[in-house]
Amino acid sequence: MDIGEYVRQKSRAAKEASRKMAFASTKLKNDALLRMADKLEWRMGELREANRKDLEAGREKGLSSAMLDRLELTEKRIWAMVQGLREVAALPDPVGMVERMARRPNGLLVGKMRVPLGVIGIIYESRPNVTVDAASLCLKSGNAVVLRGGSEAINSNIALASLFREAIREAGLPEDALQMVETTDRRVVTEMLKCEGLIDLIIPRGGKGLIRTVVEESLIPVIKHYEGICHVYVHEDADLEMAETIAFNAKVQRPGVCNAMETLLVHQAVAGDFLPKIGERLGEAGVEIRGCPRTREVLPWAKEATEEDWRTEYLDLILSVRVVEDMDQAIDHINTYGSAHTDAIVTESYEAAGKFVREVDSSSVMVNASTRFSDGGEYGLGAEIGISTDKLHARGPMGLEELTTYKWVVYGNGQIRT
Amino acid sequence: MDIGEYVRQKSRAAKEASRKMAFASTKLKNDALLRMADKLEWRMGELREANRKDLEAGREKGLSSAMLDRLELTEKRIWAMVQGLREVAALPDPVGMVERMARRPNGLLVGKMRVPLGVIGIIYESRPNVTVDAASLCLKSGNAVVLRGGSEAINSNIALASLFREAIREAGLPEDALQMVETTDRRVVTEMLKCEGLIDLIIPRGGKGLIRTVVEESLIPVIKHYEGICHVYVHEDADLEMAETIAFNAKVQRPGVCNAMETLLVHQAVAGDFLPKIGERLGEAGVEIRGCPRTREVLPWAKEATEEDWRTEYLDLILSVRVVEDMDQAIDHINTYGSAHTDAIVTESYEAAGKFVREVDSSSVMVNASTRFSDGGEYGLGAEIGISTDKLHARGPMGLEELTTYKWVVYGNGQIRT
Repeated sequence: MDIGEYVRQKSRAAKEASRKMAFASTKLKNDALLRMADKLEWRMGELREANRKDLEAGREKGLSSAMLDRLELTEKRIWAMVQGLREVAALPDPVGMVERMARRPNGLLVGKMRVPLGVIGIIYESRPNVTVDAASLCLKSGNAVVLRGGSEAINSNIALASLFREAIREAGLPEDALQMVETTDRRVVTEMLKCEGLIDLIIPRGGKGLIRTVVEESLIPVIKHYEGICHVYVHEDADLEMAETIAFNAKVQRPGVCNAMETLLVHQAVAGDFLPKIGERLGEAGVEIRGCPRTREVLPWAKEATEEDWRTEYLDLILSVRVVEDMDQAIDHINTYGSAHTDAIVTESYEAAGKFVREVDSSSVMVNASTRFSDGGEYGLGAEIGISTDKLHARGPMGLEELTTYKWVVYGNGQIRT
Repeated sequence: MDIGEYVRQKSRAAKEASRKMAFASTKLKNDALLRMADKLEWRMGELREANRKDLEAGREKGLSSAMLDRLELTEKRIWAMVQGLREVAALPDPVGMVERMARRPNGLLVGKMRVPLGVIGIIYESRPNVTVDAASLCLKSGNAVVLRGGSEAINSNIALASLFREAIREAGLPEDALQMVETTDRRVVTEMLKCEGLIDLIIPRGGKGLIRTVVEESLIPVIKHYEGICHVYVHEDADLEMAETIAFNAKVQRPGVCNAMETLLVHQAVAGDFLPKIGERLGEAGVEIRGCPRTREVLPWAKEATEEDWRTEYLDLILSVRVVEDMDQAIDHINTYGSAHTDAIVTESYEAAGKFVREVDSSSVMVNASTRFSDGGEYGLGAEIGISTDKLHARGPMGLEELTTYKWVVYGNGQIRT
């Protein structure tokens, strides 16, 4: 079959199933999720067998050991998936919730009811656990899903999808609500992005190259996570001990993730006090510092930061540091060079905290807390399908509610317009 | 100057201004709106003079008298604009509202704060009053706006923009928050749609051709109003007098608007009773009926409906009518042929009402009310910038809140992640 027709067929089947999923009861959806968990638990062997094929193929292709490690489904990792599925089953179902219902002067009762988006297309490169997260969150929120995973994990993904479709069917829901693209043909992505009217939302998860391709080619709305160039700004009145703890945590606790700090901004009034302390501690932890000229006056061992550094997401033990004249310069720096992901201020001032929160235009703005908290679980969403650096529809961590939209519901008793 | 550079310059100026608008106080924004109203009132002469130029040019170009009428800014119409501006000033400001703020187990206070989207691009063809609606709603919600109006109204639009920019400046806000494209060059649209990173949202308002062009070319997210193929379904247990009143109102009260009924669906059990009555009444009002075979058994004078009729937004005194076997067939018809705008059921049954509301996938779903109520004013939004038939971000009538997004705000006292 032609690859475009193959993708459209999958998307059409998902669309058809999404109509039933949209008003499936929470009980049935949870039943499907728990059956998915049970199957992973009971039939772990099948899954590991499929995974072994991916690992072998990966070795032959010469994947790095880091990549092979990410690909591997150890028993422990499968248990974590089982656990994740049971947690999603336990989350409250957003579908059907009615917000802002009010009676209008003419007696009409008008409100907004949460409903699923329809069909969500997920294009990802990463580990097979994304398959489990994406499938579970989309199904729980009443959507159908078309999954296109990384080619290295194709056998693992097919095995997961097959178990999950079985579970969905046994729960009495349409198994077509979960579609896995079972080919590694690269043209699939382009064809998915043309399925407007069938797929309602595309969420790409992967490197910059993938994201750029998706945004440029898609005829379907896209919500993306682009980059996490996160800042911590230490204000002149900050508790410097707290600032040190927060900055160290934001950089070092897990440097390879999107909510790690990439740039530290320090008010000139405290640069002389603060930078030597945090500099020493970061240096001991193996962090390379790239500073502005004023930073390097205090930390002569720091490398020189270029314009390019302010725009770089290192995802590594590297930090750019700039001394700023005042908070306005810090805010300006963040709004100019940042990626609107997560930015924090450390301050003791009520007014400074308020100004920073108002004027920094990022999906998460924090006062006296580590940027590492920018996460669906930490925000109380229960689970997340990603972090949006876009502005429309969903911003920051996306949980179940962000996979829904609403419809207006209007209850009358014969009202007409005059 | 090159036309692309001209558009980018306007968009850049708007982006710059949007940073200040984002945290402008409600007081200043209202002051600007009231000054805009005052200027329209006091300097009506200037505006009418500019409008006369458009009318003359329109006559020379041979515009129809209907189009000339829509273009004309009579004193009465200007007064309506003045009134509209004062009403928007009186609406509550959504910016800064915090929703769902809660304390997490670790003591972090996490919530979602409403913030402006940034820069909104409006591409429209219609009457100059869209200039006033769009400018006032965008400014009140803290956004900057780039306006590209119809070429026939170019002089009126330039005059309006000039008065409004004066008002914004006098209120102490950046006048660049309102940008009017002062050329009728058609390439402007294409260039606007490329301004990603400068314009955050595009709202096209106009005919199908314009909307299609915008959706296909835009690199920026688009929210659109596509079509209003609205249905009224009369269930077997409907109060037939109420059904008649609602169906008549939905079709006849203002047939040229998007929330007018285009297709009437009638349960077979009441077709024999209901259709002759409503048919007679609609016929007397000059409505042409195009029916399915079973409709024409009861109303032999009706024309034959083709497959094409079910997909047609007449915007006229024409109605397609279909007799359905049961509610499932009605819902299936609506979800297949409708445009997900507004659909209503007339029923006395609690269960039927619930099923219809759940299963019809439209931006507004109504029970026992005329589809004509689908409107921002009627829903209590105060004013609307349009009705979205999309699913992402905003659905149905869009008011001030729909012109905003949110950011996560996190207040801590030194929390770090472990």
